Amino acid sequence: MNYPNGIRKEKLIKKKEDIVYKNRGMNLENDINETNQYYQEKEIAFIYKKPTPIKLVKVDYKKRKINEAYFDMPSTTDYNGIYKQKYIDFEAKETINTKGFPLINIHKHQIKHIRNIYNAKGICFLIVRFTKLNKTYLLLAKDFINYIDNVKKTTIPIKYFEEKAYMIKDKFIPRVDYLEIIDNVEDV
Amino acid sequence: MNYPNGIRKEKLIKKKEDIVYKNRGMNLENDINETNQYYQEKEIAFIYKKPTPIKLVKVDYKKRKINEAYFDMPSTTDYNGIYKQKYIDFEAKETINTKGFPLINIHKHQIKHIRNIYNAKGICFLIVRFTKLNKTYLLLAKDFINYIDNVKKTTIPIKYFEEKAYMIKDKFIPRVDYLEIIDNVEDV
Repeated sequence: MNYPNGIRKEKLIKKKEDIVYKNRGMNLENDINETNQYYQEKEIAFIYKKPTPIKLVKVDYKKRKINEAYFDMPSTTDYNGIYKQKYIDFEAKETINTKGFPLINIHKHQIKHIRNIYNAKGICFLIVRFTKLNKTYLLLAKDFINYIDNVKKTTIPIKYFEEKAYMIKDKFIPRVDYLEIIDNVEDV
Repeated sequence: MNYPNGIRKEKLIKKKEDIVYKNRGMNLENDINETNQYYQEKEIAFIYKKPTPIKLVKVDYKKRKINEAYFDMPSTTDYNGIYKQKYIDFEAKETINTKGFPLINIHKHQIKHIRNIYNAKGICFLIVRFTKLNKTYLLLAKDFINYIDNVKKTTIPIKYFEEKAYMIKDKFIPRVDYLEIIDNVEDV
């Protein structure tokens, strides 16, 4: 169809904005999903993101259509699967905060879950991306729980990440190669 | 409040019907969820049902409200977690069929997933309840895949379950003690 130039431009701009908006805060998730897909294709690991829990209110089951629902609180972490015959489990979060990671991002149930998996000797950790610092860290469950149990603060300072966590370097393929770090950590 | 006897009775009956309706086709899922909760409380295993995948169409993010969405096809199995440091993964299905388990109940992606987890040496199986026969079986991934690869039929006959699968006896607590079977199977 032929639109006057002006309209076409506006449409293009709108679309670009949409894309930027859509990606905002989703980069880490996309990077991890791509990484997991790479691991699957190479048969290195089978790790999936769990669907977001939803509380259904109005459903038309014949059409398989949901007319009213609400986002629910997750009781576990977002990602889990199998790596080298072991159970692996982690949560991934982005923050624009430059001084630390606000603990409000992890719910009580999730902390309990991380503690359970750590006690059950699963491979368990957080991946935290500080978007403004352009840094992504892997913090092992033991160090995360240690902080929570011993320091009564609402934010884990960036210094704690610098000291205890492992930096995940950006790569082309796979994007966020967190298993490389797990391979090199002696005491997961 | 005081209602005439007649109304109170009708209300009670309605409630009973609701419960029966609610449980129809959900018994196995409820039994497994209760069993998993028992395992969690006793710190035996941490196994969760994944949320149902949803395709979002119209969302009011401010209110965290979903105004239009559709049920999506699951690409993995419904349950996974950790048991004795190992990755455990299974699908649970009920059928009213008395002659066998129709394979239409398991999607292609799920079969691929079961194959992947089996190859990666995870503990992987199906729990199938034949509601009209009042029997619940645990069929190991290897026997499930063996059937699919070698027999070109659309239903796994009940005889195959009787020969290859393990019957899960009804218990009071936990309801569906599938880990008891895993403990006693030599070659998972």
